[in-house]
Amino acid sequence: MTGSTPAPFTADDYRARMERAARAAAEAGLAGLLVAPGPDLVWLTGYAPPAVTERLTLLVLAPGRDPVLVVPALEAPDAEKAAGTVVPALRDWTDGDDPYAATAALLDASGRYGISDNAWAMHLLGLQQALPGTSYASLTEALPMLRAVKDASELALLEAAGAAADAAFEEIRKVPFGGRREREIAADLADLLRRFGHSQVDFTIVASGPNGADPHHEAGDRVIGRGDMVVLDFGGLRDGYGSDTSRTVHVGEPTDEERRVHDLVREAQEAGFRAVRPGVACQEVDRAARAVIAGAGHGERFVHRTGHGIGVTTHEPPYLVEGEPQPLVPGMCFSVEPGVYLPGRFGVRIEDIVTVTEDGGRRLNNTTREMVIVD
Amino acid sequence: MTGSTPAPFTADDYRARMERAARAAAEAGLAGLLVAPGPDLVWLTGYAPPAVTERLTLLVLAPGRDPVLVVPALEAPDAEKAAGTVVPALRDWTDGDDPYAATAALLDASGRYGISDNAWAMHLLGLQQALPGTSYASLTEALPMLRAVKDASELALLEAAGAAADAAFEEIRKVPFGGRREREIAADLADLLRRFGHSQVDFTIVASGPNGADPHHEAGDRVIGRGDMVVLDFGGLRDGYGSDTSRTVHVGEPTDEERRVHDLVREAQEAGFRAVRPGVACQEVDRAARAVIAGAGHGERFVHRTGHGIGVTTHEPPYLVEGEPQPLVPGMCFSVEPGVYLPGRFGVRIEDIVTVTEDGGRRLNNTTREMVIVD
Repeated sequence: MTGSTPAPFTADDYRARMERAARAAAEAGLAGLLVAPGPDLVWLTGYAPPAVTERLTLLVLAPGRDPVLVVPALEAPDAEKAAGTVVPALRDWTDGDDPYAATAALLDASGRYGISDNAWAMHLLGLQQALPGTSYASLTEALPMLRAVKDASELALLEAAGAAADAAFEEIRKVPFGGRREREIAADLADLLRRFGHSQVDFTIVASGPNGADPHHEAGDRVIGRGDMVVLDFGGLRDGYGSDTSRTVHVGEPTDEERRVHDLVREAQEAGFRAVRPGVACQEVDRAARAVIAGAGHGERFVHRTGHGIGVTTHEPPYLVEGEPQPLVPGMCFSVEPGVYLPGRFGVRIEDIVTVTEDGGRRLNNTTREMVIVD
Repeated sequence: MTGSTPAPFTADDYRARMERAARAAAEAGLAGLLVAPGPDLVWLTGYAPPAVTERLTLLVLAPGRDPVLVVPALEAPDAEKAAGTVVPALRDWTDGDDPYAATAALLDASGRYGISDNAWAMHLLGLQQALPGTSYASLTEALPMLRAVKDASELALLEAAGAAADAAFEEIRKVPFGGRREREIAADLADLLRRFGHSQVDFTIVASGPNGADPHHEAGDRVIGRGDMVVLDFGGLRDGYGSDTSRTVHVGEPTDEERRVHDLVREAQEAGFRAVRPGVACQEVDRAARAVIAGAGHGERFVHRTGHGIGVTTHEPPYLVEGEPQPLVPGMCFSVEPGVYLPGRFGVRIEDIVTVTEDGGRRLNNTTREMVIVD
């Protein structure tokens, strides 16, 4: 394991992101951003410590100042290997030093800072104690769209992750489902994602028959039978960027009702996709998909939002949900995944990752959305 | 993957821990403890969410009140499966609710609370905003020894983890080292730890020749050669409890100097071990080991502390380090791991996990501490 992502980003890519983040902070009235290990730091520097420990690692970005990465001396050699860590000055500290005093020296004593959601509470407490005049906002609350617009290199990686997930679906549809347990199919799916280049599998939902009616069912010991609908929803990270796709297959011939519900969800997914274009509010995509399902009388059975962003994580802003007025911007990438869930009976969900183009949307998943019959 | 540890603890074990933690909080002048997913929550409830997300999960412990676990409704079915989550009342919340308001209703509006070090900053900010009169201390700072004294069941699991690490060493000493890369030996070690029951491998250091002089070297592409000293330091989690042991082997016959340095580290490790007994300050164990090495003129070459605690994590209090006056208590478990590092040449480290008994110490690692010659 190295500490850097395999993404082929250059120092210039990371410098541009840091500049963009500092500008966004200034526009939001913040004195700067404090970025802890996790998706924000990976996106800004390519650096992911092999283990996140109690030792403080923090990227300090402030408008008009050079970025600084506060890092434990022990971890500095590893941090230096990441492509983006040549951009900030490294400020290392050794056990016995006070890392909060070291960080405080870089901050405005009465400034308001955005801090990574997942920064450790002990570090926030250390900063609050070192500089009682500072105040803080969670980074996602302050700058929800910071990582939402992908550049061309990021988009290429998301496309590759989507193509790998599609390849996994093309293989899984060939395996026998009937007579096997959900978790066996889930294990096959995980193996396929890895075979097609994923380094991390985040979820492999296999929800058969009545389990499909629970959108949060993962995969269990239920033996899949002839006549079952089976919701497959799987994804993870490939070269540091996420995949997430769902298809609903059927073991043997479906009933007319099953076919109708599947067609309905497919139409809703298509309607959501067609609503995607620059300037449209996130909630309009949700409304477009939901209207189709509600129009067929199943509005109550579509129990979740229509989608979520994807990038260095598999769930992030923007969220396609009622109440989200954020306008779509070219380069945003998110799922469009309506579903219908009939308690005690079955469920259907169809999901593609979609990116916003200059004049519409483009899908990053391209396997058939017609119902696939499996054995 | 289930959300609960496989440790055979009962609800009563967890209830006793929660009571002990609440008492310790009261003695430290705290209004209570706020425990986030991670080692503290595993220790107190057996519950580890499959993924830690932005959704708030928090165990609230307050002296004289019943414990409450605040948990996202989506994750409640998983949380309920853990052995210790029958003890607290479950307070679930759904997307759209304000989890901080829900938690604030359980807190004293002007209380001071200990909060898990690794709780998310966004959650701490949410609580600070919901209850501006509260104040917070990091749990490790407020109650460093909370998890330090192990009960009999925990000790049995640490013994089993230590025995598994010993079994891995007995196998790895049989494999050829000469002509192979460090990372190949490291991969073998990881496989062996898993074969002997580890579910998680945290580190497999293989530091050969001059790499051994860097105590933080992990394992690289260096091809191990005849005449090399090789530091092996490996561990992880087995049934939820940690292993961590080091042995230094030699490829072929060592020189007299290599043998002398190895003997010196062995004597220092023995001196550290012999210093362990109830009531002795942590720093005295460090001093005992360090005195042996300093006496031979290598004091400057022993560049790290003598040891660290182990339990549901592989690094935790108590720390055996100069300046730590904490007295040893029966049931504490920690590493004793002196080393000597000769820059550009080689290093030696010998490490056992040791538990404090009623009248001394007992090692949980029992492979030979004599220098092992490998091929």
